Amino acid sequence: MRLPITGSPNSETGGKTIAHGGDLGEVRRRHPEAPQPWIDLSTGINPLPYPVGALPADAWSRLPSAESEQALIAAAARRYRCDAAQVVAAPGTQALIQVLPRLVASARVAIVGPTYAEHALCWRRQGHDVAVATDLAAAASDVVVIVNPDNPTGRLAPPQALRRVDAGLLIVDEAFIDLLPPEASLAHDLPDNAIVLRSFGKTYGLAGVRLGFAIAAPPLAARLREELGPWAVSGPALAIGTTALSDDAWLQATKARLDADAAKLDAVLTSRGLKVLGGTPLFRLASHSKARDLVDALARHGIHVRAFAHQRTWLRFGLPADAEGFRRLSDALQVPQKVR
Amino acid sequence: MRLPITGSPNSETGGKTIAHGGDLGEVRRRHPEAPQPWIDLSTGINPLPYPVGALPADAWSRLPSAESEQALIAAAARRYRCDAAQVVAAPGTQALIQVLPRLVASARVAIVGPTYAEHALCWRRQGHDVAVATDLAAAASDVVVIVNPDNPTGRLAPPQALRRVDAGLLIVDEAFIDLLPPEASLAHDLPDNAIVLRSFGKTYGLAGVRLGFAIAAPPLAARLREELGPWAVSGPALAIGTTALSDDAWLQATKARLDADAAKLDAVLTSRGLKVLGGTPLFRLASHSKARDLVDALARHGIHVRAFAHQRTWLRFGLPADAEGFRRLSDALQVPQKVR
Repeated sequence: MRLPITGSPNSETGGKTIAHGGDLGEVRRRHPEAPQPWIDLSTGINPLPYPVGALPADAWSRLPSAESEQALIAAAARRYRCDAAQVVAAPGTQALIQVLPRLVASARVAIVGPTYAEHALCWRRQGHDVAVATDLAAAASDVVVIVNPDNPTGRLAPPQALRRVDAGLLIVDEAFIDLLPPEASLAHDLPDNAIVLRSFGKTYGLAGVRLGFAIAAPPLAARLREELGPWAVSGPALAIGTTALSDDAWLQATKARLDADAAKLDAVLTSRGLKVLGGTPLFRLASHSKARDLVDALARHGIHVRAFAHQRTWLRFGLPADAEGFRRLSDALQVPQKVR
Repeated sequence: MRLPITGSPNSETGGKTIAHGGDLGEVRRRHPEAPQPWIDLSTGINPLPYPVGALPADAWSRLPSAESEQALIAAAARRYRCDAAQVVAAPGTQALIQVLPRLVASARVAIVGPTYAEHALCWRRQGHDVAVATDLAAAASDVVVIVNPDNPTGRLAPPQALRRVDAGLLIVDEAFIDLLPPEASLAHDLPDNAIVLRSFGKTYGLAGVRLGFAIAAPPLAARLREELGPWAVSGPALAIGTTALSDDAWLQATKARLDADAAKLDAVLTSRGLKVLGGTPLFRLASHSKARDLVDALARHGIHVRAFAHQRTWLRFGLPADAEGFRRLSDALQVPQKVR
């Protein structure tokens, strides 16, 4: 007796994987001659991470306790200006993106995009009818998904526009909102139909920790916790997240530094003939007619940036960590004429 | 417009939570007078963890790379004597238990039990028709789930009996098999219809790390990876898991120590009038006519053990970490006559 396995890798969306930034493995193999160390600008992750101090031994050895999860959730609720009952902690925002399509039966889903591609992939895999909408106004549907600010364009939909969205479920992925004014977030005055996603690893430069949050009305939050199950977040993530999310001084200093570095990055890109289209304090989107050639030229200099299949003139740049990183980027962009 | 949310917390199984061992929060509140430090014997987690050395900064800061995930999977495949293509890494076995019920459409599910309660809860929540079977012979069904060795009884089904199971899908949860002879596991000669689950945190004493594995035929393994999504396992878990699973000497020494300590624990329990029913090298199951009173007596001595709603005379004891732990347990079990 064999059971049919649902949605096997042979089905329409099964088995597809998406190209993401943040993995140097392949570009390293293609450019073994590149100068070391590689500079990875292919993500929007803060290059100067929150300091991971010594962790209590229990964080590693014991099952994560309800108490330590509640401490993390209290810190997140304070940081995001919402109620603890609305907060769901997950091992990364991606883990939430995986389970959101299970919250509703077969639905029409409009995703404002093109944007972070995992949203469309996960909703399609679950059998929903997914369309990509060019803007929020065109996105009337059962479910509307928007990345806000958008990745990679940085386009920001104001809360009042989000409140007007007539959808049964509105998913607002605020992965890159931490460093914008708090009023930009929908989290502190959440409409009943909305789920807000917040990322920890990007702003805090700790993407390896795997920590993210959903903010939703308490019954929806309970449903999400059920999908994730017990002990979803690791002990180290609980400890680090609780400390980091409570550290206002670090966040303020980080915002000042990243704002300045983003302006500096714009200046470098502009001076080298790229047009800055937008972004957030954690990444900049720029265009160049020979963007694909630039990607290769940068790789030969040991610098990895993000290209986009749907927009061949676009490049996304994360922030260099230091003056040396800015210098290497600026030098590498002085490409010979054959590339321009 | 509102969308109905599927399987809301008001449904039959929704919102239910299960009592687990490993969380001292509640017993601490009930017994504020208990001597410190608490000794938590309520789990089957090795009390002497694998040493977490210094981790590379990248493990925290960068998105987990495909390369580091492959290194972990290679180490796991070697440890479990199977092919890397069969191995799926997850943030804890529980994360896999959450997604297994999504692999098949509506099915009849037989769970050999009563056993670790999350299996039944997760299959029921997904709408499957779940029955608990008292033994493997009684478990003919579309899907059969067995914890092997069983938790808490330690009952072990031999591989040849598992191979005879006529089910479309056979889930063998080998969470506590690491310290038994390798031949006990189904992993190294996996039937096509089987998924084996292996836990990392119990044997290695690192339950907070959140790491577990599924071993399945490559198409099934691919389907499980799809359910978990990218970056499911944290950077620290990838680094620690790769090192620990490759360390044969530590595992051998640990097995010798835990075997000896389990025998010592049996002797203590027997000398105090409990009857040892079984177990694994990581926990012992014992019975006592006044088991519930013993739980309270132990709690007053700052010792937490696991009781069972379905078997009121049973108690499960994890292993004390050291001689002092054994001494405190032995003393605490010298309960006054009113309790006996």
